[in-house]
Amino acid sequence: MDPDAVAKAFVEHYYSTFDANRAGLANLYQEGSMLTFEGQKIMGSPNIVAKLTSLPFQQCQHQITTVDCQPSGPAGGMLVFVSGNLQLAGEQHALKFSQEEKIEKKSSESEYLITLYHLTSLCCYCFGSQMFHLMPTPQGSFYVLNDIFRLNYA
Amino acid sequence: MDPDAVAKAFVEHYYSTFDANRAGLANLYQEGSMLTFEGQKIMGSPNIVAKLTSLPFQQCQHQITTVDCQPSGPAGGMLVFVSGNLQLAGEQHALKFSQEEKIEKKSSESEYLITLYHLTSLCCYCFGSQMFHLMPTPQGSFYVLNDIFRLNYA
Repeated sequence: MDPDAVAKAFVEHYYSTFDANRAGLANLYQEGSMLTFEGQKIMGSPNIVAKLTSLPFQQCQHQITTVDCQPSGPAGGMLVFVSGNLQLAGEQHALKFSQEEKIEKKSSESEYLITLYHLTSLCCYCFGSQMFHLMPTPQGSFYVLNDIFRLNYA
Repeated sequence: MDPDAVAKAFVEHYYSTFDANRAGLANLYQEGSMLTFEGQKIMGSPNIVAKLTSLPFQQCQHQITTVDCQPSGPAGGMLVFVSGNLQLAGEQHALKFSQEEKIEKKSSESEYLITLYHLTSLCCYCFGSQMFHLMPTPQGSFYVLNDIFRLNYA
């Protein structure tokens, strides 16, 4: 199987699921999976999905700019490195602004996303990079062992 | 050993070597190492260092914004995800401009860097993301098995 084709298919599946039904990402993670989201470390599929579904925006659309992949070693894993834009639904901004303010006071870890959200009043796009370490399953598929996400402020 | 401390020490060592003596990076790669540089795949320490030392700028300085790390599995590897700015030496720009033009005609793969270089007449900073997969050596150190680099155009 062509690794580049696998990586591309994974990326399309991951982000279309993220944009349409974030809870559906649970199937892609396992108990030993790790997510580092803007520096916050989260372990295990249930906690990872809880984090992703609680992000302070409901509607978003990922636009992929680049996908790079490499085999990660003899265990049959694959590293996938993605860069792209995150577009937030503009009409959500006004509706959720007061909610955002509450989140901002409650949780310093959402600081970046709040900033992002406020920025969207000027510009609906923000740039991010994400890396995945995919590991093979006995069923011949892949799951996400490692996931690191960063928004980029150039 | 604290993985975050190892990652931070590696990143500091890697970029200070890159900025001061790029050829010295050869020690960090091995025969099975892979670099994907702006989409171009390069295998093995000698080819990787040849690529890095032939980049169309002589002086640069990396400024690291974020470093994230995760263990990559039972083999004792570590994933390190870095974002930051690349500052090119301003005084080099005028000197090397005609040389850049030649490179631009000769090699489409340097298109991104040429664009970056031209951009530096307006702004000396560009944003990039890089991921490393470090694997342990028998001597108790680490080498770079996987390396993926992308400049970010938000």
